[in-house]
Amino acid sequence: MPGPSTYFSNDRLDELSEPTRLLVERRNRSLGAAYRLFYDDPVEIVRGLGTRLWDAAGTEYLDVYNNVPSVGHSHPRVVEAIAAQAALVNTNTRYLDRRLVEYSEELLGTLPRALANVLYTCTGSEANDLALRIAKTVTGKQGVIVTRNAYHGVTSETALISPSLGGEASIAPWVRLVDPPTGDGSAFADAVTAAAAELAASEHGFAALVADSIFASDGVHPGGAPFLGRVSDIVHDADGLYIADEVQSGFGRLGHDLWGFTRHDSALGAVVPDLVTVGKPMGNGMPIGAVIARRELVDEFAARGRYFSTFGGTPVSIAAADAVLHIIREEGLIENARMVGEYLTTGLGMLAEFHEAVGAVRGVGLFLGVDLVRDGVPDEHSTLVVVNELRRRGVLIGASGAARNTLKVRPPLCFSTADADRFLTELDSALRVARTAKAI
Amino acid sequence: MPGPSTYFSNDRLDELSEPTRLLVERRNRSLGAAYRLFYDDPVEIVRGLGTRLWDAAGTEYLDVYNNVPSVGHSHPRVVEAIAAQAALVNTNTRYLDRRLVEYSEELLGTLPRALANVLYTCTGSEANDLALRIAKTVTGKQGVIVTRNAYHGVTSETALISPSLGGEASIAPWVRLVDPPTGDGSAFADAVTAAAAELAASEHGFAALVADSIFASDGVHPGGAPFLGRVSDIVHDADGLYIADEVQSGFGRLGHDLWGFTRHDSALGAVVPDLVTVGKPMGNGMPIGAVIARRELVDEFAARGRYFSTFGGTPVSIAAADAVLHIIREEGLIENARMVGEYLTTGLGMLAEFHEAVGAVRGVGLFLGVDLVRDGVPDEHSTLVVVNELRRRGVLIGASGAARNTLKVRPPLCFSTADADRFLTELDSALRVARTAKAI
Repeated sequence: MPGPSTYFSNDRLDELSEPTRLLVERRNRSLGAAYRLFYDDPVEIVRGLGTRLWDAAGTEYLDVYNNVPSVGHSHPRVVEAIAAQAALVNTNTRYLDRRLVEYSEELLGTLPRALANVLYTCTGSEANDLALRIAKTVTGKQGVIVTRNAYHGVTSETALISPSLGGEASIAPWVRLVDPPTGDGSAFADAVTAAAAELAASEHGFAALVADSIFASDGVHPGGAPFLGRVSDIVHDADGLYIADEVQSGFGRLGHDLWGFTRHDSALGAVVPDLVTVGKPMGNGMPIGAVIARRELVDEFAARGRYFSTFGGTPVSIAAADAVLHIIREEGLIENARMVGEYLTTGLGMLAEFHEAVGAVRGVGLFLGVDLVRDGVPDEHSTLVVVNELRRRGVLIGASGAARNTLKVRPPLCFSTADADRFLTELDSALRVARTAKAI
Repeated sequence: MPGPSTYFSNDRLDELSEPTRLLVERRNRSLGAAYRLFYDDPVEIVRGLGTRLWDAAGTEYLDVYNNVPSVGHSHPRVVEAIAAQAALVNTNTRYLDRRLVEYSEELLGTLPRALANVLYTCTGSEANDLALRIAKTVTGKQGVIVTRNAYHGVTSETALISPSLGGEASIAPWVRLVDPPTGDGSAFADAVTAAAAELAASEHGFAALVADSIFASDGVHPGGAPFLGRVSDIVHDADGLYIADEVQSGFGRLGHDLWGFTRHDSALGAVVPDLVTVGKPMGNGMPIGAVIARRELVDEFAARGRYFSTFGGTPVSIAAADAVLHIIREEGLIENARMVGEYLTTGLGMLAEFHEAVGAVRGVGLFLGVDLVRDGVPDEHSTLVVVNELRRRGVLIGASGAARNTLKVRPPLCFSTADADRFLTELDSALRVARTAKAI
């Protein structure tokens, strides 16, 4: 029997129930080898509401994983917005659309004034791809700095700056890797300084730092704000651009503000990235992303060619995004993320007292990383046992980090303290199971 | 006063009605300089049904341009499929989803058997980007052949093979350009042979030919089928892959079959691309695209890394795509495209007898290109006069081709002969206006 995994292995086909096995086999034939399913026993989701999902047999799951349906699965107001607009018309941005303009103004109003233009895409990958294209075009340089286990997308270009996909061997020659921030972020700032200088002196030149404001794929590293302000200055001093990847940290998840980088505002000044990229929760599941940029960068990019995306910023996508932005405000989801995030952090701290396996608990708002360790070293095996045991107990969660030993806690933003209690109770039980489980 | 254009110029702001001018100005401020609006007098679309669109003032337009809402604007069955699935749940492909499997099987059933796996994206750009990533990974080569005014997408990678975006200077060193097919396609085949040999002998090597099956951005060139079968053999003999870009020609538009490349099947055998990319009409406006590939290519790609797209193949997108596939069949839209396409071709031929400005009429099904000429040379100015005059007359159309003198006729597939009559009548009038308009 193979060891436990976050993802289903075909070696386990015989362990599945007959209907599940048949569906997985059909899926394997048509989708092929590049796709993966969660869990040793995959889940067939057929319905969702708020923080809950249900499988085909009617079993209920608490969703502690999905950061896309951030205002809650099947939020009636988002559903209604999509249905109403789809029934009216769904064209493209080459026609005038009043709501596109109004939503754009509202979105830009949540960001520093210098970020004056928004360009719509369908995914976070496309947003990071476009941000890189703008940054490289405007600076005339190629070099990019990212963190050691960064993930910024699956297009050809963004895969080249995403070591989490294919390892360090898969990244481009013009990419430099730095460790994610720890402590007060000084080491991170020093590493960016050195990498920028090294790139500037190379044939590639230095174009940009791309930083996920919560360093999710590196294992969730909020670091001690406000180091990103200093890092932004370092990048600018090296004539580079600072691209804030808010695909995961954006739209209120960190419980502070809509944006992750504003956690780093300080008496020294507000943090103002040159380009901000957004995606995942923007339309609660509708495929919409965006690049928000300084106007002068867009002007210079536009001088060399125009931008158009067939599906980017279409009326139905904007209707969903517009509903999401209003729901976040009107349902107080940022404050909820802060409050429930603190409640969870406290609860996880209490669990750590009873379970040696629980190491560091990091994060802010509803984006927490919980390291599982054994004798002080990362324990991937126990992490995978816990992930699969939680799935059996009706709680959906995933793992991340370079050592795959970090539980990613990033539920919909409407997660309640009662949801948190249920999660903590089941996690406690899963940790007990993991303790008695044999290592591979 | 600036000359007429397919796109709005800010030099014309003062010519607009007060409400339109104010909205355009607000749009300019928030979306910035990279975006463009159609027509000298932009249209604010607020409603659509079938082949009709309505602006904010209630004026009706006949849509001869939009190939995305291919089963018709706001088709009730697509709207209902989207609304129903959005109300149930919208997750991702890492959970089991029966309809995803069923739709995938159905889609693959429409393609040659060797094309056994489908990978979902959100856009045609992402599909072409992923196809290139797979092709380059599997062949270990970089070199790509495309046509002289090709358009294959707006990601960093696909922009490098899209001379129509930024001219020949903007394409990558590993790209070779060939003229689009004319006549029996012999010259095209010879050009591909030479380019493949040249790339194979270069440091880049030869990875793939990417060919839009209708050569839309080159000005619509169906060529004399079955030359693509020969070209496919040439590519394979040079150890390259043939990527059929069906983003525009796919899903029945050519009135022959669901796919453009099957027009080239012959007694010598069926045409079987290595990778097929789809997008635009796949979900009638829902952002969904896909790469359909030979299984062995996906297997080899998967051995180096997995594929996941957050929004690719989500339940709501699949619901829309599933509805579209069934509507195309049940409403006989392929047959309609063939029949109305022939009717339009005949009608355009008749117009050519009365208007010297009408040059070649090319195309198949509901994808036609009509060249406007003066003394036998491309006449961009008259083309732009006609495009804007048609807009004033309630008919929406666009222009393409390297010389910008080709009217692109590619309406929703439910376009009727009555729609065709209205279009031909208005085009006749617009041509009369253009004849009397002064050249710049």
